[in-house]
Amino acid sequence: MTDLRRVGTNPDFWYPVAVSRRLRPGRVLGTAFAGERIALYRGRSGAVHALEDRCAHRQVPLSMGVVEGETLLCCYHAWAYRGDGRISRIPYLSKGDGRPPRGVRAYPVREAYGLVFVFPGDPDKAAVTALPELPAFGTPQYKTMTFSRTVHCHYSFMHENLLDMNHQFLHRGVVGKLRPELLEYRTGARSVEARYLFTHAGGKRNRSAGLLAAEGIGGSPSRDVMTIRTAYPYQTLDLVPENAERPAFCLWAAYVPEDAEQRTCHAYGLLMIEKPGIPGALHLAWPFIRRFTERVFAEDRMAVEAEQRAWEEQGEDRNHEVFPLILDVRDVLRSNGVPLDPGDALDSPASHEGHASASGCHAAEPATPVGEMPPVELPDG
Amino acid sequence: MTDLRRVGTNPDFWYPVAVSRRLRPGRVLGTAFAGERIALYRGRSGAVHALEDRCAHRQVPLSMGVVEGETLLCCYHAWAYRGDGRISRIPYLSKGDGRPPRGVRAYPVREAYGLVFVFPGDPDKAAVTALPELPAFGTPQYKTMTFSRTVHCHYSFMHENLLDMNHQFLHRGVVGKLRPELLEYRTGARSVEARYLFTHAGGKRNRSAGLLAAEGIGGSPSRDVMTIRTAYPYQTLDLVPENAERPAFCLWAAYVPEDAEQRTCHAYGLLMIEKPGIPGALHLAWPFIRRFTERVFAEDRMAVEAEQRAWEEQGEDRNHEVFPLILDVRDVLRSNGVPLDPGDALDSPASHEGHASASGCHAAEPATPVGEMPPVELPDG
Amino acid sequence: MTDLRRVGTNPDFWYPVAVSRRLRPGRVLGTAFAGERIALYRGRSGAVHALEDRCAHRQVPLSMGVVEGETLLCCYHAWAYRGDGRISRIPYLSKGDGRPPRGVRAYPVREAYGLVFVFPGDPDKAAVTALPELPAFGTPQYKTMTFSRTVHCHYSFMHENLLDMNHQFLHRGVVGKLRPELLEYRTGARSVEARYLFTHAGGKRNRSAGLLAAEGIGGSPSRDVMTIRTAYPYQTLDLVPENAERPAFCLWAAYVPEDAEQRTCHAYGLLMIEKPGIPGALHLAWPFIRRFTERVFAEDRMAVEAEQRAWEEQGEDRNHEVFPLILDVRDVLRSNGVPLDPGDALDSPASHEGHASASGCHAAEPATPVGEMPPVELPDG
Repeated sequence: MTDLRRVGTNPDFWYPVAVSRRLRPGRVLGTAFAGERIALYRGRSGAVHALEDRCAHRQVPLSMGVVEGETLLCCYHAWAYRGDGRISRIPYLSKGDGRPPRGVRAYPVREAYGLVFVFPGDPDKAAVTALPELPAFGTPQYKTMTFSRTVHCHYSFMHENLLDMNHQFLHRGVVGKLRPELLEYRTGARSVEARYLFTHAGGKRNRSAGLLAAEGIGGSPSRDVMTIRTAYPYQTLDLVPENAERPAFCLWAAYVPEDAEQRTCHAYGLLMIEKPGIPGALHLAWPFIRRFTERVFAEDRMAVEAEQRAWEEQGEDRNHEVFPLILDVRDVLRSNGVPLDPGDALDSPASHEGHASASGCHAAEPATPVGEMPPVELPDG
Repeated sequence: MTDLRRVGTNPDFWYPVAVSRRLRPGRVLGTAFAGERIALYRGRSGAVHALEDRCAHRQVPLSMGVVEGETLLCCYHAWAYRGDGRISRIPYLSKGDGRPPRGVRAYPVREAYGLVFVFPGDPDKAAVTALPELPAFGTPQYKTMTFSRTVHCHYSFMHENLLDMNHQFLHRGVVGKLRPELLEYRTGARSVEARYLFTHAGGKRNRSAGLLAAEGIGGSPSRDVMTIRTAYPYQTLDLVPENAERPAFCLWAAYVPEDAEQRTCHAYGLLMIEKPGIPGALHLAWPFIRRFTERVFAEDRMAVEAEQRAWEEQGEDRNHEVFPLILDVRDVLRSNGVPLDPGDALDSPASHEGHASASGCHAAEPATPVGEMPPVELPDG
Repeated sequence: MTDLRRVGTNPDFWYPVAVSRRLRPGRVLGTAFAGERIALYRGRSGAVHALEDRCAHRQVPLSMGVVEGETLLCCYHAWAYRGDGRISRIPYLSKGDGRPPRGVRAYPVREAYGLVFVFPGDPDKAAVTALPELPAFGTPQYKTMTFSRTVHCHYSFMHENLLDMNHQFLHRGVVGKLRPELLEYRTGARSVEARYLFTHAGGKRNRSAGLLAAEGIGGSPSRDVMTIRTAYPYQTLDLVPENAERPAFCLWAAYVPEDAEQRTCHAYGLLMIEKPGIPGALHLAWPFIRRFTERVFAEDRMAVEAEQRAWEEQGEDRNHEVFPLILDVRDVLRSNGVPLDPGDALDSPASHEGHASASGCHAAEPATPVGEMPPVELPDG
């Protein structure tokens, strides 16, 4: 079986590669997807363009260049590129001076949710591939906190980290003693969804954790239901306090490989937090929530980066996973990914009949529950 | 002939891997032997345990974990390990939930001389293999200074450095002009012992060097006899001032490879210094002796690390050694070591008849002198 | 065709490896040519010697050693070397003690123009190979500013950078908007020479650029003719203001590979600046000229190092060069160079009939102009 850490993420999806507000009109930004360097620039019109980050002339990064109108000029000899990657001008050459290079690759690009997304795969599929849907984003009920961080690990460690809530021990110092209990999980061809019941088993409880659970403002300590979902290639987490109508917060995350070997990823996160009834309360709590989530994330990063280092030292994946839904998410990530090296053979989704439903159901349509543990109803509070 | 710098140290000995006082009760420490990461922890009882530094679950270092009684908990999902490496608990699994991994490797461990020793080789040999003997340690006549330093070189460079006292030129700025004269040397299957006469040939003499030779306190400048011995895998140095009954100081040292390629070692040293007749004098001199020895050691480190860098750039050992006893110690280190790569073939001790006595005599039983230079008696002062 | 970035510079020339005033009598300096480490030392007599930077004994760099008269002592065991590389003394060995190593390689060495040159190739050719000629150096009309900088790129990028003046866009922030126009170029077996007309097309003009063109002192804005020449393996640039009799400044440069793969070079530059009529004016302008040239050089370095990084990531030269004289200089550098790896085959100069004249003319004798653009006379100001 292919080593999961040698499976590349499938490029035929929309991947965030920058935070929109970091790319002001007339500016260029260097980013990357799985070892492909990408120069993003925003023309004076406000439109964002994504080009291969190499001047066709001397391979100098175009992200070192200068924007002129909707054109990007290489910093070195001022070759000018259009947003579609074609060369519009070489200042010192006339029309008759032989054939200049054809230009550089351009990526389909879209902006949404305050992020710049590119489509690194087959461009013909871009138009028929949907951006992720985030219904809570931009509604009056929720306010969004954006995260953007490089993590030195294969993206699969991130999925496993979030889905396996038994790792709360890692955060004992920040969130206190939480007892997670798996209620049920469902596995599909492209998704794994788990529902946990969280109860506070004593120990200090972080104020911001409380705030984040909308509790510091509204009510008494309560039990929460957390739904975590890998819907390839994205991941979401919703926390619904007991008896609440809607989530206290929803997290959407994508882990975008930066290097060709995909041993480093860039984690983009959108944390949509429910606004409490009291106006301004969330505004006041905002820096505390930011600090709390950064601390939790720092601990997760420490763990997943330790896993990546172990993998590099051992040269292979020696994990002994015992939690069935993590075995499932590994299958999902393996079967939906692509070989990192063209020579590698990956097992096809069809070979995973045991765990994945053969219906090819989309992540938005949860599959019938499979796996060893039967679905369990949430007990009354 | 195998390149000496590609010979691994023999794991069937007790090797120090930590200074005892750095491992307080309830604490964990990450250390290593030849690329094997080791988690040391001291249970609440005071006993030290040494485990493979990888959680059996996700390979995260156990040295990032937490001690609970005599148990070590992995920081990530709180898997609990006993001192023998077996898993005592996985918090979120019941007995029936399939077979958990068998646990991790545990190393035989002992504490002595303020150091934690592990036995990284065949565990069956641990019980029948003696710890090094340091008769002066802990006696009323001697006080011990402990050293612990990483040096970026193969351990063999350390043995050669100390045994070849012709390198005093390196320390001319710190110890002044010393004239070392080899009196005799003896080579065995596992040992090389050299005796030098040291006379001060003028130039500044470091006060602390004097202190170290017990001279600054007691007497007039004198000639010293220095006995240096590689007794595989350890090394010792005794300095006996002329007409003295016992050594002014004794050094015991071990060079423990840290990485799998053994290009970095950790040097542990115990310097046992004779207490002078005046109470408190050694206490006052202590920081000066510490500084003096650190300066000498820094110079040695500069030289041996330059040798290692040269080896790495040249890809092989191009030394042209002309000093017979250094040729002998190279043979001893080569024949007692192990191949670094299982594919490598090492010449067996039996093939060294020319230099090493075939009796297999232990380091504690000096062999008949061999080599080109005959033993010489120490001339009268 | 061989990848130009895998072509080594021809060692059968004199290459600068140090600035003379950095090597005072009795001092040692470590330098390098294409991965060969070289220890330079100046004996008490003032003569400079260049030895292989490895003690024959234990390969420790001799540049860590000590000068005694005209002898260099290794820092470790004090082996003594003569300027010709032979061992003159091993302190602890007598004549009869076997054969010591033969010593180390010595390089032919010369001092000129404030630089130390070595001849790293066939020593028999050193005597018949001339040092570069710099007629302006040391004359009353010119004052020389010396540059010495490591640049992380193959030396060929440096030649291409200077010869292709269309890269003025890179310096727009420092020198303002310059319009370079190629007047003519000539290619020989060992040289490419290009003449450009520079006119100021508006935008801010740096004061120091003006000073450098002797303009801030003497006259009104003018057009300049710049002659740039790769005369293997060196490069020169002369700037002659319109109607001037002699250059306002002349630059001589050499790019000396430091590492064996020649991915890093050390750039040595001698900038000879015409002294203006007013005594002391150049002295006052000196720090400004220094700062200006450092800024221009920093921008060039940014560009060529980006090219080198691109080459390393792409694993080959993917440049699409469209400027004929740059194609020519690539041929000159390729045909005059040597294979980096002995196994590589390099195309011989004879195979370049298209661009290079077959006469084998020396750089000092410009070849008949070739290439697509006809030579053009400088139009009247």
